[in-house]
Amino acid sequence: MRVIPPKEAIMNANPKFLAATAHVDDAAVHPLPNSSKVYVQGSRPDLRVPMRQVAQSDTPGMFGGEPNPPVFVYDCSGPYTDPAARIDIRSGLAPLRQKWIEERGDSEILAGPSSRYGVERLQDPGLAELRFNLKRAPRRARRGMNVSQMHYAKQGLITPEMEFIAVRENLERSRYVESLKATGKTGEKMLELLTWQHRGESFGAAIPELITPEFVRSEVARGRAIIPANINHPESEPMVIGRNFLVKVNANIGNSAVSSGIGEEVEKMTWAIRWGGDTVMDLSTGKHIHETREWIVRNAPVPIGTVPIYQALEKVDGKAEELTWEIYRDTLIEQAEQGVDYFTIHAGVLLRYVPMTAKRMTGIVSRGGSIMAKWCLSHHKESFLYTNFEEICEIMKAYDVSFSLGDGLRPGSGYDANDEAQLSELRTLGELTKVAWKHDVQVMIEGPGHVPMQLIKENMEIQLKACHEAPFYTLGPLTTDIAPGYDHITSAIGAAQIGWYGTAMLCYVTPKEHLGLPNKKDVKDGIMAYKIAAHAADLAKGHPGAQIRDNAISKARFEFRWDDQFNLGLDPDTAKDFHDETLPKDSMKVAHFCSMCGPHFCSMKITQDVRDYVERGMQEKSVEFVKKGAEIYQKT
Amino acid sequence: MRVIPPKEAIMNANPKFLAATAHVDDAAVHPLPNSSKVYVQGSRPDLRVPMRQVAQSDTPGMFGGEPNPPVFVYDCSGPYTDPAARIDIRSGLAPLRQKWIEERGDSEILAGPSSRYGVERLQDPGLAELRFNLKRAPRRARRGMNVSQMHYAKQGLITPEMEFIAVRENLERSRYVESLKATGKTGEKMLELLTWQHRGESFGAAIPELITPEFVRSEVARGRAIIPANINHPESEPMVIGRNFLVKVNANIGNSAVSSGIGEEVEKMTWAIRWGGDTVMDLSTGKHIHETREWIVRNAPVPIGTVPIYQALEKVDGKAEELTWEIYRDTLIEQAEQGVDYFTIHAGVLLRYVPMTAKRMTGIVSRGGSIMAKWCLSHHKESFLYTNFEEICEIMKAYDVSFSLGDGLRPGSGYDANDEAQLSELRTLGELTKVAWKHDVQVMIEGPGHVPMQLIKENMEIQLKACHEAPFYTLGPLTTDIAPGYDHITSAIGAAQIGWYGTAMLCYVTPKEHLGLPNKKDVKDGIMAYKIAAHAADLAKGHPGAQIRDNAISKARFEFRWDDQFNLGLDPDTAKDFHDETLPKDSMKVAHFCSMCGPHFCSMKITQDVRDYVERGMQEKSVEFVKKGAEIYQKT
Repeated sequence: MRVIPPKEAIMNANPKFLAATAHVDDAAVHPLPNSSKVYVQGSRPDLRVPMRQVAQSDTPGMFGGEPNPPVFVYDCSGPYTDPAARIDIRSGLAPLRQKWIEERGDSEILAGPSSRYGVERLQDPGLAELRFNLKRAPRRARRGMNVSQMHYAKQGLITPEMEFIAVRENLERSRYVESLKATGKTGEKMLELLTWQHRGESFGAAIPELITPEFVRSEVARGRAIIPANINHPESEPMVIGRNFLVKVNANIGNSAVSSGIGEEVEKMTWAIRWGGDTVMDLSTGKHIHETREWIVRNAPVPIGTVPIYQALEKVDGKAEELTWEIYRDTLIEQAEQGVDYFTIHAGVLLRYVPMTAKRMTGIVSRGGSIMAKWCLSHHKESFLYTNFEEICEIMKAYDVSFSLGDGLRPGSGYDANDEAQLSELRTLGELTKVAWKHDVQVMIEGPGHVPMQLIKENMEIQLKACHEAPFYTLGPLTTDIAPGYDHITSAIGAAQIGWYGTAMLCYVTPKEHLGLPNKKDVKDGIMAYKIAAHAADLAKGHPGAQIRDNAISKARFEFRWDDQFNLGLDPDTAKDFHDETLPKDSMKVAHFCSMCGPHFCSMKITQDVRDYVERGMQEKSVEFVKKGAEIYQKT
Repeated sequence: MRVIPPKEAIMNANPKFLAATAHVDDAAVHPLPNSSKVYVQGSRPDLRVPMRQVAQSDTPGMFGGEPNPPVFVYDCSGPYTDPAARIDIRSGLAPLRQKWIEERGDSEILAGPSSRYGVERLQDPGLAELRFNLKRAPRRARRGMNVSQMHYAKQGLITPEMEFIAVRENLERSRYVESLKATGKTGEKMLELLTWQHRGESFGAAIPELITPEFVRSEVARGRAIIPANINHPESEPMVIGRNFLVKVNANIGNSAVSSGIGEEVEKMTWAIRWGGDTVMDLSTGKHIHETREWIVRNAPVPIGTVPIYQALEKVDGKAEELTWEIYRDTLIEQAEQGVDYFTIHAGVLLRYVPMTAKRMTGIVSRGGSIMAKWCLSHHKESFLYTNFEEICEIMKAYDVSFSLGDGLRPGSGYDANDEAQLSELRTLGELTKVAWKHDVQVMIEGPGHVPMQLIKENMEIQLKACHEAPFYTLGPLTTDIAPGYDHITSAIGAAQIGWYGTAMLCYVTPKEHLGLPNKKDVKDGIMAYKIAAHAADLAKGHPGAQIRDNAISKARFEFRWDDQFNLGLDPDTAKDFHDETLPKDSMKVAHFCSMCGPHFCSMKITQDVRDYVERGMQEKSVEFVKKGAEIYQKT
């Protein structure tokens, strides 16, 4: 049974929090139109892989009247779109991986936070009303143990997480094939039509026809894929990032000094995953970073990433030169014990690379990169992230936090793309990847940024080589700088291409990039542009089954199944609204024409004539066609 | 002096027309912020090439305090953004090419329309109030003469149109270089910084450093570029479509049976060119097609394209099988005498290709293609467009209408991309190109549609070969079918790529594609996505000077010149609105930080520290930096 607590209930429970949650929107917790949540049972009762089933109507009689089986799509939205789930953001989501983690017997429950800062925040009575009430204590690897998925993978162990992922990555295709087969003869014909796809061009990616748990394991062991899955974030549904899997999308949220609100950020997270965010990064730099993060992690069914240096900087009042390894280290532990799944760490910003940015058009635009550059210059010392890298690895493996090795020297303009600073840092990230792998710590590599189209492929190739095929995770790239207000588009163009060439996860860019903080509309616009880019890349690589959804929607479009066309799309609400602007009447949803041509002429209808014509033989048909007055179209 | 007639004046003059023009928006006729219209004088007094000059503020003192010269951008908006121009849509625009056309002495003024339909419409008293009051009679080539730009080009003549284009294509770069040189020493440094660009990858395109009138002539003579410039549209500012020039963007407008309004369509045209539409196609299929077109052409400073079969079909009440060559021929003449600059003609839809579409997912989706398919099937005869192609050429060359050979069999889904039907038609278009060239008639070739990324390059290569390098003019292509409501994005991804590979003009797709008729917002959204795609393609090809605008905006961004960043962008209004959502105060426009990082930390500022550091030597600076407390950032 589903209980969404009324807003008043949250308000009574936590007035301060509610002040910030005034915008929480019930729309974000309803299933999408004509969609239902289904679960595929894995090898154990508590391994249930979610997917979204989109029901379809039958083909209209004039096109053959066949039934159209449901289409299944990858679903990032977690329990929020499951009417059977109990949603209460004060309690957080159910810890579905809890038992798997416990069973491995290599971790222990701590008495409480082991970071100095974590203890302080817990003991601060002034934060009582802001604090998420987590009853579970943090967990850490037992001494000498390594709880990373890569560690298990290298030992040949297939974890439930890996099995979950294998099922999840295959879902769309295998379930579809199943349901088509179940419909008998029609199903067989449709199976051929709807599962057919163009041959891909994969640029060295090798995606198997069927993703097995063993394949997931081998990719993770090889370092070519990561499973961001902190043992302190048991609420997360396992997912994989690697170029032999579906291309993923990350959405950034987070408050800043000029705009805040815990509730808003939790809401942005649920909103982002509703529309397909595979991971979410909390980039908060404003007030209550620690508490905001706790609320987000506890309610997130997707992996959460952070940039710990942002919070470390707040702890020294924004004075980069006052940062110390001790403060940073404490921040890593603090966040790891909250359950953050991956950390962006700009350990490749070396002292000697900093001067390389002096001749740039736009210098250092990465916040983390510029913080470390400032620190290095102030102390004239090598980055403490670099010099303490092995100790960072020790922390990462104690919680299974994955590295997202940050590109602190990424270009901030097309002018600076693929320059010496950027590529020098990239090579250092490659060296650090080897160090992390020595510790069985999972790694992905962050990439630019701003890159004109003709340099994108080169960038990808250099990354694959320099970083030993560790997954690439890119921001865009933006292919031109001339469209502030539209950088979701300038960058979706680059993202689609770099995804095709081998990038495993695309970090979204919203229309507000360079201009302001994204609101909910911007978050959705960013996600949409990036789901499109990721899917275009999957199609181009020839990811098995990727074309099913395209084929299904094309068939629906051709058969004037308007609602099916809307519902199979990435954003049914907008598609329907747009249609209704021109033809608002409900009866028009069953009309066999659209507003572009109007009722008296329809090219889709003519194709049906062509099919009849071909079927019956050209000569015979010609005579009959003219006899009938050649007017087949049914006026409405 | 500028006189925009008050709405009441138009209303009094033409009440019926005004009923439809109620939405005409003065916003469309103001210059863009901080922009002014400038003209470059050509070799004759009446050859004045327009461009938009964007003024910039000086670099703030903390970044060096240098003056930033204005940036010049290609300008499609015509006199509408010129405060010195007299705008009166009842009179239309000034016929700037009139004298050039007269001087050639190869055309004559007719007594009136020579099409049967044109005469009928002129004599219908019921249309008096709807009719544009054109006092000029139509013009046609004198017997035996050919007035096409290709004809002149092949004879070695450089027309004023060619010179106009050469100046126009170079404008951004040459004017910029000039103005930079004028600023002395600072200018020289800036010249190096701002005109530098990455090497392009041109896939066989050969864009010279400087476009000369002779180069324009040779490309047109060779058939590799066209200048759509009907002698009955002297109001148009010459432009060129070819892969050795800037990539162009077309915007479609037009009413339909379910939505109409002459005023709305004129307004969409002015709106489309304000944001960068290089040509506009009037695809009206609703009421008063003839009259709507007249208003559009008379007020259009850009070439206008149409699909004459749409109107021909209306003349036979939507019954494709009742179409005749005579009706179609009369329509061509009717439209040619109104001044339409290019005609989409689906002459490659051959009877034998029609059955190839029977096995498609989405059959025939081109309206023109399906009309012709229906006609061919009904009569079991070869298309009258194909069998009368030479006679069509005779009409085209009498007015200088360019062919846009239509892709009537383009795919309507990724599934159908690059199939036998599509490629067979494309080869026929290549044969027809040769026929048209024999008549010295200009030709471009229309392309798909829906194509997954990995097939785009192949499509472009086949076109170049099959059509002898005649310019390719593509709709998108859409790279996936799963995002109705966002097809401006699914297709901008494909458009940027095919533009890079060699497509000369991109036909925009709006967010309403597949769903409804675009309104003004959709028109702008479509144009923006396509200006981005076209510019990304120009950058990737290494079009000389293409990166100037990117460099200028990056410099402005880095120096926190907010207004310059907005104004140099494609859409200053939206950029400013987005910025103001987070930091609305005017004082924030001069703030040296942005809402992403807030006032206490700024990565851009740190880069300035890096530059100082490098300049003064690393050791010395390090000491001083720490001494100063390393807090340079000026709190506001």
